[in-house]
Amino acid sequence: MAGSIPTPRPGGSMTHQEAVSRAIEIAGHVLAPAAADNDKAGRFSAEAVDALGRTGLLGLMLPAESGGAGLGPRTFAAVTATLAEADASVAMVYLMHALGAATIGSARSGATVGPVLADIAAGRHLSTLAFSEAGSRSHFWTPISRARRNGSGGVRITASKSWVTSASHAQSYIVSALSPEGVSPTDLTLYVVPAGAPGLSVAGPWDGLGLRANASAPMTLSDCEVPSELQITDDGAGFQAMMSIVLPLFNLGTAAVALGICRAAVQATAAHLKSARFEHLNQSLGESLPTLRAQLAAMQIDTEGLSARVDDLIDHLERPRDATMLRVLETKAAAGDTAIAVTSAAMRACGGAAFSKHTSIERFFRDAHAGAVMAPTGDVLREFIARIVLGMPLF
Amino acid sequence: MAGSIPTPRPGGSMTHQEAVSRAIEIAGHVLAPAAADNDKAGRFSAEAVDALGRTGLLGLMLPAESGGAGLGPRTFAAVTATLAEADASVAMVYLMHALGAATIGSARSGATVGPVLADIAAGRHLSTLAFSEAGSRSHFWTPISRARRNGSGGVRITASKSWVTSASHAQSYIVSALSPEGVSPTDLTLYVVPAGAPGLSVAGPWDGLGLRANASAPMTLSDCEVPSELQITDDGAGFQAMMSIVLPLFNLGTAAVALGICRAAVQATAAHLKSARFEHLNQSLGESLPTLRAQLAAMQIDTEGLSARVDDLIDHLERPRDATMLRVLETKAAAGDTAIAVTSAAMRACGGAAFSKHTSIERFFRDAHAGAVMAPTGDVLREFIARIVLGMPLF
Amino acid sequence: MAGSIPTPRPGGSMTHQEAVSRAIEIAGHVLAPAAADNDKAGRFSAEAVDALGRTGLLGLMLPAESGGAGLGPRTFAAVTATLAEADASVAMVYLMHALGAATIGSARSGATVGPVLADIAAGRHLSTLAFSEAGSRSHFWTPISRARRNGSGGVRITASKSWVTSASHAQSYIVSALSPEGVSPTDLTLYVVPAGAPGLSVAGPWDGLGLRANASAPMTLSDCEVPSELQITDDGAGFQAMMSIVLPLFNLGTAAVALGICRAAVQATAAHLKSARFEHLNQSLGESLPTLRAQLAAMQIDTEGLSARVDDLIDHLERPRDATMLRVLETKAAAGDTAIAVTSAAMRACGGAAFSKHTSIERFFRDAHAGAVMAPTGDVLREFIARIVLGMPLF
Amino acid sequence: MAGSIPTPRPGGSMTHQEAVSRAIEIAGHVLAPAAADNDKAGRFSAEAVDALGRTGLLGLMLPAESGGAGLGPRTFAAVTATLAEADASVAMVYLMHALGAATIGSARSGATVGPVLADIAAGRHLSTLAFSEAGSRSHFWTPISRARRNGSGGVRITASKSWVTSASHAQSYIVSALSPEGVSPTDLTLYVVPAGAPGLSVAGPWDGLGLRANASAPMTLSDCEVPSELQITDDGAGFQAMMSIVLPLFNLGTAAVALGICRAAVQATAAHLKSARFEHLNQSLGESLPTLRAQLAAMQIDTEGLSARVDDLIDHLERPRDATMLRVLETKAAAGDTAIAVTSAAMRACGGAAFSKHTSIERFFRDAHAGAVMAPTGDVLREFIARIVLGMPLF
Repeated sequence: MAGSIPTPRPGGSMTHQEAVSRAIEIAGHVLAPAAADNDKAGRFSAEAVDALGRTGLLGLMLPAESGGAGLGPRTFAAVTATLAEADASVAMVYLMHALGAATIGSARSGATVGPVLADIAAGRHLSTLAFSEAGSRSHFWTPISRARRNGSGGVRITASKSWVTSASHAQSYIVSALSPEGVSPTDLTLYVVPAGAPGLSVAGPWDGLGLRANASAPMTLSDCEVPSELQITDDGAGFQAMMSIVLPLFNLGTAAVALGICRAAVQATAAHLKSARFEHLNQSLGESLPTLRAQLAAMQIDTEGLSARVDDLIDHLERPRDATMLRVLETKAAAGDTAIAVTSAAMRACGGAAFSKHTSIERFFRDAHAGAVMAPTGDVLREFIARIVLGMPLF
Repeated sequence: MAGSIPTPRPGGSMTHQEAVSRAIEIAGHVLAPAAADNDKAGRFSAEAVDALGRTGLLGLMLPAESGGAGLGPRTFAAVTATLAEADASVAMVYLMHALGAATIGSARSGATVGPVLADIAAGRHLSTLAFSEAGSRSHFWTPISRARRNGSGGVRITASKSWVTSASHAQSYIVSALSPEGVSPTDLTLYVVPAGAPGLSVAGPWDGLGLRANASAPMTLSDCEVPSELQITDDGAGFQAMMSIVLPLFNLGTAAVALGICRAAVQATAAHLKSARFEHLNQSLGESLPTLRAQLAAMQIDTEGLSARVDDLIDHLERPRDATMLRVLETKAAAGDTAIAVTSAAMRACGGAAFSKHTSIERFFRDAHAGAVMAPTGDVLREFIARIVLGMPLF
Repeated sequence: MAGSIPTPRPGGSMTHQEAVSRAIEIAGHVLAPAAADNDKAGRFSAEAVDALGRTGLLGLMLPAESGGAGLGPRTFAAVTATLAEADASVAMVYLMHALGAATIGSARSGATVGPVLADIAAGRHLSTLAFSEAGSRSHFWTPISRARRNGSGGVRITASKSWVTSASHAQSYIVSALSPEGVSPTDLTLYVVPAGAPGLSVAGPWDGLGLRANASAPMTLSDCEVPSELQITDDGAGFQAMMSIVLPLFNLGTAAVALGICRAAVQATAAHLKSARFEHLNQSLGESLPTLRAQLAAMQIDTEGLSARVDDLIDHLERPRDATMLRVLETKAAAGDTAIAVTSAAMRACGGAAFSKHTSIERFFRDAHAGAVMAPTGDVLREFIARIVLGMPLF
Repeated sequence: MAGSIPTPRPGGSMTHQEAVSRAIEIAGHVLAPAAADNDKAGRFSAEAVDALGRTGLLGLMLPAESGGAGLGPRTFAAVTATLAEADASVAMVYLMHALGAATIGSARSGATVGPVLADIAAGRHLSTLAFSEAGSRSHFWTPISRARRNGSGGVRITASKSWVTSASHAQSYIVSALSPEGVSPTDLTLYVVPAGAPGLSVAGPWDGLGLRANASAPMTLSDCEVPSELQITDDGAGFQAMMSIVLPLFNLGTAAVALGICRAAVQATAAHLKSARFEHLNQSLGESLPTLRAQLAAMQIDTEGLSARVDDLIDHLERPRDATMLRVLETKAAAGDTAIAVTSAAMRACGGAAFSKHTSIERFFRDAHAGAVMAPTGDVLREFIARIVLGMPLF
């Protein structure tokens, strides 16, 4: 099926609209037909990654000099939401890759990341993040693991990473660890660890409520050696990279995933209310039941509100101002709640048909619960937001 | 494991406390160990039904003269909630059986139901309901199918039944159909159809979001012959039986299932908040996070509120008064919403641990969504309640 | 109007049903006709207190040997809810009096409270609590003020009390203060201070969103002398009295007030939906709008759920068991939320008619917000509940 | 105080930023100091209208050729939100005037509205709408009253109008009535009726829960003669004007009012949490209580979400597209709910301080409930939205 997607020009020259069109093509031809089966089987879609690579979308935000398309958060959000409308698991894989690529793309001058960037631009390299640890749970900004000097300029890392999206499918992992000589709990450094590195292994299968096809497994680093060239931030500069590069795009991206899920839920609910009928009344559910219409409307209202928020955040990222960090935090918190609210309403509105999997709604509903769970969680975001509003220190 | 349950005296002599104790035993030894696997595999627990039969619980509400324990709604609710705390799928199987048994037990004088009742009392017969139809969906009180006279006192029924719990596992099905000469859309009759009846067949597998182990498949009756002895209500009296026998017990039972799920969710959440730790803070989640404590408390408050409601409904069923039908309707509506609210809060409070199935919470969460879906749905209940409050006709 | 209430036998001999009947009489003849005007003017209803006194209801829970009716929490809750249905301000005055009377009634042996109890039983004495202080806000269990020995066995108290119900209308105030030699922040003592005591004064007018007719003003004690006979707990035993006597009855009473408000809101909403009409459709709002019916039903469901909770708490107070303190805490938390939810729904359902005060609903709505505000607040209650569930210390 | 506002250049030449600055000035110097007193007294602020007139803001959206500033919905929304932050009653007066002015400004060619427009531009004329009628309640698109030909080209109108903002303070009222020969229930015509017209009278005082200072009284037209020059739509074209001119601006304007209220509530809550202290803990409430911080954050999140929505709607009104009507409907529905949610959270977070009017929060809370009540109500909006999504006819 993926074969039906026209081979694009090299990624480097792509407009916003072209990128979105390619995402629509892939969503329709590669993602949608396989989403239900991949969800059921918990199967990672290598086909989807392949299609994203061939169409240049893996290099979407890399600068032109690295062979990327040089596009920004607006296109990234549109592509991610489009993918999520068909398969949120793939959208999350894409999102995590984009974060990895952006982190690598902003590597310190001493790092050697040219080949990796070239591979990403060429669509041959999928990256991802490996931040959260079992010991510090959702507080991803505070690793428990500490890198140790290996005597030849590099480090050795032993860590228990949880929730690594695309685990065993990515070509590289952005790994965080406390800096060898760091003193504060956020004095951390980032490294890019290639897939085949000795000591790096997937620690278990992935079996979640939702996003079942994104291979979010735990991974173990056991005395894993990382040479100096693959240290991508200066010692202790990892936290800053997390806050300035990863967090804004991650929050935008998860909001885009939530938006895609919400849109899919609205469409599926409307379709069900139009097609399902009370034979004894000779009416569709939608015609017969004002209270179901009210629920559908509430879903639509919430979905478009999230869309407006995403647009607003994009505007803030394109033209940063004082309130930008607040918007970054607010948007993910709202997106997580909105996706749950909208898909929960869809479950209610479609009742038994949704519950017994006659529609895709229960998949949207399960997938929707991932966003609120991924750190920074809603509780943490609200704590940060309140501290900013009250003028209290964040950490 | 079931072997460890002491063989009880014959069901006919059982106190409330004995019945609950037997349910606790079965829940702990038969249900709990297998619940996760049965959920995953969508496997019906014949072992559970066997244990319920051997301990006399299948005949719980049958009168002593039929060999039953002669117990009432109070014990039925307690047993059902106890089972649901360990495995809501089994609790729903039990509930549907109890409704079937109660319907058979109140059969019109012309019916021949003695042998079936004896088998139920002896723990050898599982019954269930087959009311809802594809054409009239959740409006179970309005079948599309109409029984036709077969010329020898009985009828032939052709119907497409949806959502038959214990499908292909029950020994009998209580089937509704429009009466042969009925005129109004609720002029229906009930029949008990034995499992092997020609023309009766399961129409597909069960694959739902929750209650995955209760075999809630659609069934087809294709020119299925039912002799006069198995017509258990008078012609057209099926609606009255639905309203006076089935509805009160069904609503009480689903509320009890919801209560069991809520209790399990509170316990699992408390256990998680006590055991999961932030290593970097050397605190449990519960000690560290006041906002999680607030969520746990809200769950506890809602759960005990549902418990108080169930007690209140039992009191109303034991001593019926004017408001009893309102309580019947209100309790199911509240129970469905409460189960969803409590388990949703548990999902939030336990975050990634719940999402990635490290606890049973996501099973409780999925199971909790069944209650609101089963007719009469929340929307229908609210419509009926408002009509009663406003003095408008119900149908 | 009050004159139409039949003079009862002396309070000492009153059944539950008689007490409720008297409350119904007073609610209908004294409270209901004046509630709207008293609310508007912020006028304390001396007539209501007079009627409550004459009918023996002020001595409801005092033991027969003190001349009281010797009735328990069940009757107290029913009377309070009945009053609240007509005027929540009066119900709150009654509630605070009942707490004061119960505290005085359980005075330490060294206190001289016989005359006060006799006056209460005779309906000539209204009491109330003065616990909360400006400095410790809602943490009423931690006064800032500390009693100082006056050299003749008594104490002098200087304190800034906030929110004293019936301020300047009560004959006595139960005042808390840190014990003269107390060390912990909850080492406090209770005193009964008569209305005319030198140094005791009302510190400002009452102008609240709701409960406008209950005179909840701040009060100041300025070097106020309290003789030993009016110290009603042993030194440092005030906290224990708060927890064992005041808290259970206060939480039950506020839940009863909330229940009365909810019932009034359901009735007023139903009445509006039946009487208000769309002339162009020739239908009442209730007939025309299924979504309004759904809101009315949700109100009814919530109200009856609160009723079941109140019954459950009464049962726990009559037969205390392990979970009783949890129920005490849960019930107030739930009641506060329920009253707000039900009256908010009433505001929505009745729209402009409610907003523009064509019904009493906006008064119920304003009054409903008092419960959640009165300490222990919902946040505090949830914190306590979670600590109990998690096995953490309460303070 | 109003005197401190610099006399602007004539309204006709004003930028967006100048308009907003003038609104900020007026809000700070005229509205804020008087808002609490006007609310308490239910007093209409003639000073505010005067200031709005003198600064050219009454002619904000009138075209330059009529002497207006020729500004659009973006400035209108910003000005309205700014006013609402200080006093929502004045903001609503302004909003209703803007709708009246826009309707007059788009009068049919046969109407004589030049003098009125000139007065508006000069700041000497306040207009408002008189649409809703007692008989058809919130269905303002279906008047009960019907204009009758007066034999000289004009009409006579007898109508019972409810909820006329600025009643008895405006210089003109835009009145709707069924067209003399209209056949459908929406076949209506609009007229501009000057304040002094014989037969036009205010039918009662205004005493509402909120927006107490906007004089929203009922008005009566009793055989009120309207000459042909003051018929501002063609016969039967009133409905179209309501939908295309009034509805978009009204929904935008009420959303802007809601936004201003939300912003005020966030600021007041943050201020309270920073200043109110637990003396015994030596901490502010905000420092002490994570659950209050969570509520403040939720308020902030909701407020900024509404802000994003308003921006999105403005963008749609500036560049209309297919979804624009949906956005018009969604935004008011969301705004009404958001204002209630945010101010309700503020009430909870500020507890007794808010309830006892030590902050302005309870005024914001009361005012917030106006939006959802004003037609089209939330229920009606959701019904329309669902019908659009489902492809069903709107009326």
